[in-house]
Amino acid sequence: MIRTRTGDLDQRLVEIHSATLDLIDRHVPTCVAIEGVFTGRNARTALLLGHARGVLVLAAALRGLPIHEYAPREVKKRVVGTGAAGKEQVGFMVKQHLRLATAPKPADAADGCAIALCHLIAQLPASMGSGVVS
Amino acid sequence: MIRTRTGDLDQRLVEIHSATLDLIDRHVPTCVAIEGVFTGRNARTALLLGHARGVLVLAAALRGLPIHEYAPREVKKRVVGTGAAGKEQVGFMVKQHLRLATAPKPADAADGCAIALCHLIAQLPASMGSGVVS
Repeated sequence: MIRTRTGDLDQRLVEIHSATLDLIDRHVPTCVAIEGVFTGRNARTALLLGHARGVLVLAAALRGLPIHEYAPREVKKRVVGTGAAGKEQVGFMVKQHLRLATAPKPADAADGCAIALCHLIAQLPASMGSGVVS
Repeated sequence: MIRTRTGDLDQRLVEIHSATLDLIDRHVPTCVAIEGVFTGRNARTALLLGHARGVLVLAAALRGLPIHEYAPREVKKRVVGTGAAGKEQVGFMVKQHLRLATAPKPADAADGCAIALCHLIAQLPASMGSGVVS
């Protein structure tokens, strides 16, 4: 997880962008999966979220990585089996899929893992279902 | 004005970011003035706007430029004299201040000039008012 220090928005965006580039350079992924645009939040929250998401997407694009978006409902559907799953269920299934001792904390970290797992499952032939990664 | 080609969001963000860095490197400004966060738009529009604004703010921050935000109302108040000014009035005053033959088109370009003028006027000693740049 990238945690920014409290401070001005511009410095926090520099931190998010630079930490994302570092993560990409360290782990050399072949693609990036992110949570899709959702419209349930209020406009002010959405605008701030957009700033952070923009510099993150930019970092992936600057490294030439394809970006895959998944709506929160689709992530839960693919990883847990139901689009209406709660945070505990997502955490539990992430723990099972990745064979961890405990679910990643906080719930946002488990969500991040779930998005990556969702993309992995989406790449599988339909006949294999989601069971193959458990 | 930066115009992006239609295409994927990630490529458009790269274009905006790179064009902003180019503009900064060409004109070597000492600061950047942008329109402040406003919450009147719907969440989806705000999220997309946030992406573009995020990579623009990032470009300024990466070049070490201080960023000044002004609410749309304050821009109109300082440049036109009333916070309720319409687009035509903003265009007219930008034309007058900058001694142009016609107002910049489209209205968004005039708005950009108005934000820069607003910051300039805000730096003046209070006793000089806004008349000094006209």
